[in-house]
Amino acid sequence: MRDNLTFLLDVDGVLTTGQFLYSVNGKIYKVFGPHDSDGLKMLSDKINIKFVSADKRGFKITRKRIDDLGFKVTLVSELDRYDHIKKTFGLENVIYMGDGIHDAKILKDCFFGIAPASGRIEAKKAADFVTHSNAAEGAVLDACLKIKEILFKEK
Amino acid sequence: MRDNLTFLLDVDGVLTTGQFLYSVNGKIYKVFGPHDSDGLKMLSDKINIKFVSADKRGFKITRKRIDDLGFKVTLVSELDRYDHIKKTFGLENVIYMGDGIHDAKILKDCFFGIAPASGRIEAKKAADFVTHSNAAEGAVLDACLKIKEILFKEK
Amino acid sequence: MRDNLTFLLDVDGVLTTGQFLYSVNGKIYKVFGPHDSDGLKMLSDKINIKFVSADKRGFKITRKRIDDLGFKVTLVSELDRYDHIKKTFGLENVIYMGDGIHDAKILKDCFFGIAPASGRIEAKKAADFVTHSNAAEGAVLDACLKIKEILFKEK
Amino acid sequence: MRDNLTFLLDVDGVLTTGQFLYSVNGKIYKVFGPHDSDGLKMLSDKINIKFVSADKRGFKITRKRIDDLGFKVTLVSELDRYDHIKKTFGLENVIYMGDGIHDAKILKDCFFGIAPASGRIEAKKAADFVTHSNAAEGAVLDACLKIKEILFKEK
Repeated sequence: MRDNLTFLLDVDGVLTTGQFLYSVNGKIYKVFGPHDSDGLKMLSDKINIKFVSADKRGFKITRKRIDDLGFKVTLVSELDRYDHIKKTFGLENVIYMGDGIHDAKILKDCFFGIAPASGRIEAKKAADFVTHSNAAEGAVLDACLKIKEILFKEK
Repeated sequence: MRDNLTFLLDVDGVLTTGQFLYSVNGKIYKVFGPHDSDGLKMLSDKINIKFVSADKRGFKITRKRIDDLGFKVTLVSELDRYDHIKKTFGLENVIYMGDGIHDAKILKDCFFGIAPASGRIEAKKAADFVTHSNAAEGAVLDACLKIKEILFKEK
Repeated sequence: MRDNLTFLLDVDGVLTTGQFLYSVNGKIYKVFGPHDSDGLKMLSDKINIKFVSADKRGFKITRKRIDDLGFKVTLVSELDRYDHIKKTFGLENVIYMGDGIHDAKILKDCFFGIAPASGRIEAKKAADFVTHSNAAEGAVLDACLKIKEILFKEK
Repeated sequence: MRDNLTFLLDVDGVLTTGQFLYSVNGKIYKVFGPHDSDGLKMLSDKINIKFVSADKRGFKITRKRIDDLGFKVTLVSELDRYDHIKKTFGLENVIYMGDGIHDAKILKDCFFGIAPASGRIEAKKAADFVTHSNAAEGAVLDACLKIKEILFKEK
């Protein structure tokens, strides 16, 4: 266990395709994908895993999914996220995975930054590692395999 | 603020994938994507932003999403849209973003025409700028970054 | 009006992505796409347009959508479809659009066969024309533009 | 009929895209695709066909779909699956189709292993045959045509 390190993941566009279904009643569904829970299980006894989301309107959906996976998620706006991570964890103690334009700065300054193949170009340029798979098609499993490789020399 | 200019966006195929889910009760869901609200926030104090839609059957879904984003949407049929824009804004005062075959003429004659990468070939040929991203995968953020660049020389 | 000719379209995989959403209660949603109603409107006063579907379980969803578009759809199993078309219309009087492995024989023997880019290889090999767009991304509009071109010399 | 052989298929990522829709109430929908039922019908009087799933949370959705197709599905966790197949069928009597990282070992050791084009690289490397189509876009029909070819010399 690497107690000093946290693998912190954005949810929308990382665990989901980023897309959501709207009805006349608003945001109702998010699209999650396969493989990612396999990856998170591999790492869950080796490193702290936490989630962060800026999606206020869809937060109850997000929380339901992260609860079901057995983890915790915090609601932090995209503009506050950099300072939140700095204060809560210290940027040097965080492996961060994010896909958005506001994630670029975090990806650059954290211990190790990961972007999904389907992420914004700004995030991918700032990341240390870009996954082979798109979000909700296995990007988080790719990330977990990479973390095992760099931290624990396991392939 | 450029008060004389309006960024006018079609909704289906621009903010959404263009796809919709039908049940035995009709059109129930539309698929929206990530990143676009980040882009619209960047521009909202710099230029007027308005939406237009021809989708009568799904208009309540559309209006709910545009309301949630903090903007206004008007229902105008595709065949009336050219004249509607001419009369309401003046074509020369509009940056227009659209993806359909009937959008081609507007894209050609407006101040600056933008089509998403996933738009019809007829729209993309008529546009001044084709986004790198598909609709509902960041096309509107791409468009907003381009507008900032051409109008405000910001990168 | 070419009264002797019918444009007959399969629904699933032609007007829809072919995909459908299942809940614990069964097949609930189908995914339709943009642009296709623009194409059908262009042709509706020039040629007969009819739909056929083999999807018994999802037929009520299909019929709701085709009703909303203003056309008729008939439920015919895939194995009976060839003979049904022969008896009802005569294969030589039908422009057929289909995407499945059982559509190949119809596509080969009808007046003009059209397959979407996303169709089965067996259908695409048998067709006279393969659309540029995938199903539910404009394949039916592509088909309508092609029909206008070959029947009415309009581009 | 080849009574000694069983075509055993994983469900998520093989019959479905692997993606699922989450609401505030949890996992509600899975996305199935076209063509696959055509393939399964072709083989159903020639070989035993059975399904296996590790998705506890979505098992009722899975069972509803497999029931509708006329087959049986068993819930077995991914880590127990290898031993379950060994004990129940004997690995040498199974044509297995799977897409996940834990399927790789089964795909390697079974009689004939099949992975969809959209499967994990680990599964595709271990498989004897990788389908041309992605999951929920015809991968199971591709697999059925291949099985007919290798077992019954039918093309």
